[in-house]
Amino acid sequence: MKIDDILIREHNESFRESQQAGFTFLAERLQHEGFDVDSLLHKITSFQIAIPSWALGAGGTRFGRFSMGGEPRSLEEKIADVGLLHALNKSSDAISLHIPWDVPENTTAIKALAEEYSLVFDAVNSNTFQDQPGQGHSYKFGSLSHTDHAVRQQAIDHNIEVIKTGQELGSGALTVWLADGACFPGQQHFKKAFQRTLTSLQAIYEQLPEDWKMFVEYKPYEPNFYATVIQDWGSSHLMASKLGKKALCLVDLGHHLPNTNIEQIVALLMMEEKLGGFHFNDSKYGDDDLTAGSIKPYQLFLIFNELVAGMEDPACANPTPAWMIDASHNVKDPLEDLLQSVEAIKIAYAQALLVKRDALEVAQEENDVVKAQEILQNAFRTDVRPLLAEARLRAGAAVDPVALFRKLNIRQHLRKERGLKTVSTGL
Amino acid sequence: MKIDDILIREHNESFRESQQAGFTFLAERLQHEGFDVDSLLHKITSFQIAIPSWALGAGGTRFGRFSMGGEPRSLEEKIADVGLLHALNKSSDAISLHIPWDVPENTTAIKALAEEYSLVFDAVNSNTFQDQPGQGHSYKFGSLSHTDHAVRQQAIDHNIEVIKTGQELGSGALTVWLADGACFPGQQHFKKAFQRTLTSLQAIYEQLPEDWKMFVEYKPYEPNFYATVIQDWGSSHLMASKLGKKALCLVDLGHHLPNTNIEQIVALLMMEEKLGGFHFNDSKYGDDDLTAGSIKPYQLFLIFNELVAGMEDPACANPTPAWMIDASHNVKDPLEDLLQSVEAIKIAYAQALLVKRDALEVAQEENDVVKAQEILQNAFRTDVRPLLAEARLRAGAAVDPVALFRKLNIRQHLRKERGLKTVSTGL
Amino acid sequence: MKIDDILIREHNESFRESQQAGFTFLAERLQHEGFDVDSLLHKITSFQIAIPSWALGAGGTRFGRFSMGGEPRSLEEKIADVGLLHALNKSSDAISLHIPWDVPENTTAIKALAEEYSLVFDAVNSNTFQDQPGQGHSYKFGSLSHTDHAVRQQAIDHNIEVIKTGQELGSGALTVWLADGACFPGQQHFKKAFQRTLTSLQAIYEQLPEDWKMFVEYKPYEPNFYATVIQDWGSSHLMASKLGKKALCLVDLGHHLPNTNIEQIVALLMMEEKLGGFHFNDSKYGDDDLTAGSIKPYQLFLIFNELVAGMEDPACANPTPAWMIDASHNVKDPLEDLLQSVEAIKIAYAQALLVKRDALEVAQEENDVVKAQEILQNAFRTDVRPLLAEARLRAGAAVDPVALFRKLNIRQHLRKERGLKTVSTGL
Amino acid sequence: MKIDDILIREHNESFRESQQAGFTFLAERLQHEGFDVDSLLHKITSFQIAIPSWALGAGGTRFGRFSMGGEPRSLEEKIADVGLLHALNKSSDAISLHIPWDVPENTTAIKALAEEYSLVFDAVNSNTFQDQPGQGHSYKFGSLSHTDHAVRQQAIDHNIEVIKTGQELGSGALTVWLADGACFPGQQHFKKAFQRTLTSLQAIYEQLPEDWKMFVEYKPYEPNFYATVIQDWGSSHLMASKLGKKALCLVDLGHHLPNTNIEQIVALLMMEEKLGGFHFNDSKYGDDDLTAGSIKPYQLFLIFNELVAGMEDPACANPTPAWMIDASHNVKDPLEDLLQSVEAIKIAYAQALLVKRDALEVAQEENDVVKAQEILQNAFRTDVRPLLAEARLRAGAAVDPVALFRKLNIRQHLRKERGLKTVSTGL
Repeated sequence: MKIDDILIREHNESFRESQQAGFTFLAERLQHEGFDVDSLLHKITSFQIAIPSWALGAGGTRFGRFSMGGEPRSLEEKIADVGLLHALNKSSDAISLHIPWDVPENTTAIKALAEEYSLVFDAVNSNTFQDQPGQGHSYKFGSLSHTDHAVRQQAIDHNIEVIKTGQELGSGALTVWLADGACFPGQQHFKKAFQRTLTSLQAIYEQLPEDWKMFVEYKPYEPNFYATVIQDWGSSHLMASKLGKKALCLVDLGHHLPNTNIEQIVALLMMEEKLGGFHFNDSKYGDDDLTAGSIKPYQLFLIFNELVAGMEDPACANPTPAWMIDASHNVKDPLEDLLQSVEAIKIAYAQALLVKRDALEVAQEENDVVKAQEILQNAFRTDVRPLLAEARLRAGAAVDPVALFRKLNIRQHLRKERGLKTVSTGL
Repeated sequence: MKIDDILIREHNESFRESQQAGFTFLAERLQHEGFDVDSLLHKITSFQIAIPSWALGAGGTRFGRFSMGGEPRSLEEKIADVGLLHALNKSSDAISLHIPWDVPENTTAIKALAEEYSLVFDAVNSNTFQDQPGQGHSYKFGSLSHTDHAVRQQAIDHNIEVIKTGQELGSGALTVWLADGACFPGQQHFKKAFQRTLTSLQAIYEQLPEDWKMFVEYKPYEPNFYATVIQDWGSSHLMASKLGKKALCLVDLGHHLPNTNIEQIVALLMMEEKLGGFHFNDSKYGDDDLTAGSIKPYQLFLIFNELVAGMEDPACANPTPAWMIDASHNVKDPLEDLLQSVEAIKIAYAQALLVKRDALEVAQEENDVVKAQEILQNAFRTDVRPLLAEARLRAGAAVDPVALFRKLNIRQHLRKERGLKTVSTGL
Repeated sequence: MKIDDILIREHNESFRESQQAGFTFLAERLQHEGFDVDSLLHKITSFQIAIPSWALGAGGTRFGRFSMGGEPRSLEEKIADVGLLHALNKSSDAISLHIPWDVPENTTAIKALAEEYSLVFDAVNSNTFQDQPGQGHSYKFGSLSHTDHAVRQQAIDHNIEVIKTGQELGSGALTVWLADGACFPGQQHFKKAFQRTLTSLQAIYEQLPEDWKMFVEYKPYEPNFYATVIQDWGSSHLMASKLGKKALCLVDLGHHLPNTNIEQIVALLMMEEKLGGFHFNDSKYGDDDLTAGSIKPYQLFLIFNELVAGMEDPACANPTPAWMIDASHNVKDPLEDLLQSVEAIKIAYAQALLVKRDALEVAQEENDVVKAQEILQNAFRTDVRPLLAEARLRAGAAVDPVALFRKLNIRQHLRKERGLKTVSTGL
Repeated sequence: MKIDDILIREHNESFRESQQAGFTFLAERLQHEGFDVDSLLHKITSFQIAIPSWALGAGGTRFGRFSMGGEPRSLEEKIADVGLLHALNKSSDAISLHIPWDVPENTTAIKALAEEYSLVFDAVNSNTFQDQPGQGHSYKFGSLSHTDHAVRQQAIDHNIEVIKTGQELGSGALTVWLADGACFPGQQHFKKAFQRTLTSLQAIYEQLPEDWKMFVEYKPYEPNFYATVIQDWGSSHLMASKLGKKALCLVDLGHHLPNTNIEQIVALLMMEEKLGGFHFNDSKYGDDDLTAGSIKPYQLFLIFNELVAGMEDPACANPTPAWMIDASHNVKDPLEDLLQSVEAIKIAYAQALLVKRDALEVAQEENDVVKAQEILQNAFRTDVRPLLAEARLRAGAAVDPVALFRKLNIRQHLRKERGLKTVSTGL
């Protein structure tokens, strides 16, 4: 299903007056404060967040999963869904595939299809946390860290296969989320597990094309409930340092212990030029995979404050991180949910762009804590939505993507097309 | 599969000397300290922990599930598995059923089968957190708390059905674990959700037989990730108080926020005569459902310290709680895992029996903190395993149940009998 | 030190144009959305937050305290400081005293002084967590829960004394924060400690004037590190229910375990008509006592969303809670910090007033989770600062209180007046 | 005050029979299992845990401090107190000083005094988290990370001074616990703060004698409540790696976020040969500084399981860590508390020595999770107290140190000698 541009223009027409009023007011205020509004709009437009192929269907927990109908049944339909999102908000021009859930049968055709939707292929993801039918060895007790060489080799081979698929699609990065770990004390020899993993990753790293990156994700628990091999940024950083320049750390917002100061981790990883990618979502308890910005929007802003500081610092050689959503949709329509996530992420980004960085650094130098807080909160309290809407308007996207999605009855169309009891591969 | 008594006797024979030596040494020490060893043995033998029907197969997470083969394919085979456990340790003479996973087709036959294994039926559990095939309404947005009266009625009817099944089987309690809640701020009207739930529970309560109990379980999150209707003991207690005398609270060790002092909750619920039941497991992060005692054995002991204090206090009118394991088995053989859990629970119980309660109360009165700790730790540091083994020996169970389970190749037998790719209903 | 009204008017004059533009724009938008802006302004102006007498000096931790000079040396100077705050923002017309830190020598004179600053006396606070010079018994091992009757009686008498002081000052509530608890397992008999506390509170309750309230605060840990007698809302509610109608629960935002859903607790307490008072602050780890809204502003908004829902519901008989800040100031000037806190609290309140409650309830009834989130976030993302500034402007307060505080060199004046090495009684 | 050896012998005599029986039984069992009991006894005896000079008086919180009398008023009395402990348990032959709380006026005399008690000087600790009278610059906004060069220089100079004092006393390590950080978002530039700290530490490192070590401690929060410069092992390890071979990480058990897997951190640091020292205590919520083993004894055992694995692995070049207690004593007599801590630590150590390491590694290789748990828990469940008592007996210490401490009325003697209202420097 594709959205006719004319429908978007009609939708936008109905917002013309209010959007113009809101944008004009905000733009004037920002100009008055010394901001270059066109530059802001340009940055906001350019900020693209990849959509994971596995998050286009209803998500689930170990307790159950409630289908919602019209979910994509194939890679082609997943691309179509991301295409829909991108048409609505012009902010998600890339899709991130998960192998083996999304192995393209005909790479050329798939690339052509993606191009039709103006989409490219973001980082490819390997999967060694589930057994696939016909698989020689089980990952029950690990993959890249397994005690058995044959299991490790199978997991290494799979990752190399994923790189090849990615190369054919034009991707430039491999994301390794290693679920390996232990459910019980004693189960795993921590040191050996780390070292076996390192050796396995080195074997994969050797096959990584020169211009590719490898993202090493960390997570403290789940699906293992006592320990994981790469449990925190410290382990991920140690691993990436030992691997080499192309290996970088990947931060998933849900992969931290309670109360972790994530923004500080982001700042340190950029300092070390090791921040490779970002998985956005939100959470209250564990890896809840909720809509970005739905629980802790100020934390999201503080993280972007560090990201923007790093990205705008000419002395910081950290590559621009790969931006991706990694959420699950248990009670919301996945497409609406992703639209809300993208909006929240870009709001945080826009607010971070409004931080008066020079003044902030002066306040920091002078230990003027009250002023530093005021500078941050001034940016956060600013209602930047007219800025985002204007960026969408100018890019040919919808002023209010969720509203248009609903008005066009897109989900009903998809249900009619794909059926009510579809199950999308993924989580 | 049944274990011939002679095999148990042979097994025990091989431990005769070491067990006798260990028990004699411990018994003498305990007698010297004023304990009645026979009474201790009697209490330990009498302490029976129910096995849930849903925890006899391999467990799983949202990321996957690794089958282990030989899992029970029917209620009959589940009963056989609990029978095996009980034959090995004589400590699990009851099974707790989950409806609709375990609806008996022929109640009389099932009861007869259970009797063959010397098993009775513990609390029955309703399930309104999943949709069953052919179900009229979906529980996607709740059940007993749902905004739609028809959904609530369906959930009420199901619970009443569960009571009826339980009555036929000779059970005496209904456990209500309500997964209802919200994944996002704003999704649910807290007050209305609580009140709708209360009204639903009242409708069920009215159908509860006079001599039955209703256990109201609480849990802070999962499968909902922002709020649950009955999130903590405070809500559970409020609900149970409003319902009436037959309604009691159920404590699952994994259903608490980080750092919660669970033993204090247990003490307060007993003070209010509202502690109805207990779900044993262990966890490091969330509701990890690990083997009891595998992560925090001292916490388990402290909880039993409160339980024993309440149970042995003639002034405490709290009914003896229903004891049950509620664990999941992702990497261990479920039967071995359950044997380890039962052992850990009974160790904690035995240690709590060794707390010199009068001396402890004196130390408490005198604020002798050092002494109070010493009294508790003296009990905890005692190696009570010979006591447990002796209790098993005298009851005709195995001195080392896990060792015998392995020696008899029970899992291999079950795999041969039931197949390698079985999936047991449950979590 | 008092601020001449003319200085405030001069200050406001400098903001005239920008404030008028900002307010007009916002007011038009709100009117367009159906809000009565005058009513909003009235509510915002009426919302007054009491200042605790113990939070006007530099705070400290067990590791140290860094004086900042000019701190109030007497109750009179504390009143003057609150008067300064109230002059600047017209939002803090009450002071909450802590006995024995702030025992007035001459009640009539103190009342007259407060009146000069247009201040009244909010809830009075007892202190049984520290020993005072010359005190007969030590609170080292507890006060209202102590095993020794004489200690309990001393604590009871102190509380009754506090009530008397409060009566003379025109206060109408007693806040009991009970620090009693245990640092180690075994130290305290949970049930007896609860019951002794209840008996002690009953003795105090009996002396409570008819039109007074007693607030029962809860806290999970600190200064005791294993257990506290009133550890959570469940215990506080149980205690308050047993005490009677005048006893209500008090919520301090920092007194919760990690990840607690505080807004749900607030909703349930209002449902039970037991929410008595509120202590505002913010925190990332424990009871960090940071500036309100400095860490989790969205949580603060969600809490106010429940408070406003309760307060605007004619069916809800919960009395209007007593609003108070309870923060500590380790690195900020206390007066600037308090101005920032009040601003953040009123922003959250104003945003909660902008929640379209009818639409929200419709979305909740229909389980339209996406819409419910949109309604909440629309309110939260609105920049309500012009509304607050307008309310201040009309009330004769400063448009930008912190800026004026700095421009008038108030801290320097206070340092000159009071000295550099002052230590204010309090935390 | 010194304890006459004859009193210890008399005390031990009263335990002769029971100790002999207990030890014989355990020793036989261990020999039967293949352990060399003499070697075990030797290891246990050799395991010495340093006592911090600042933990010999009553501790406190920000809410208050309850004196207990007889606390040491000088460095000499602190040494005497540690001497008392060492006489009682022969397990604490070292004292760790905190400068400037314990600056020796006459180093030669102090060294001679320590020798009298058979004590040596463990790591010396600098203090840049408090301002001292007459200090030129304030540490309110940091020390080694401060934005002002002069403050950093003062902190550097202080550390170098501490090294010099340590050299004179025969110490061989400097512990840097850096309290620097931020209470609010925006207050600190994370990257610059890290880099300034690194530069400061490099300046100190340059002055470190060749055979010394520098321990870099980490802590997530308190006294700063938003961020700390060295927040976790990842930061500590990064810092130590950049500093050089003499810089190592220091693990304090209380310095972790909720649910952290500390034993894995220990294993990884040993893998990297960067584990320098250990601060023992226990906690339920934050940095509660409770008696070691009083809350989570199994965690302590699991940590020792990793420590022993590393120490007994000839391939592991990590230096033997410096062992120290770092606890606070709010409700217990500090000396009794320290005796309990040492006992708990050595119990965990002894249990870890009983882990059948070869069998464990086999179980790990074979993913026999049930067996691996059994091996660990067999060791943990063993009552090793007779082994510890025997080690003490043979070393000339008391079989039951706390009992003897009480029987000899030591605290009363100290109170008489030193007074009732003493305040010891420290926390």
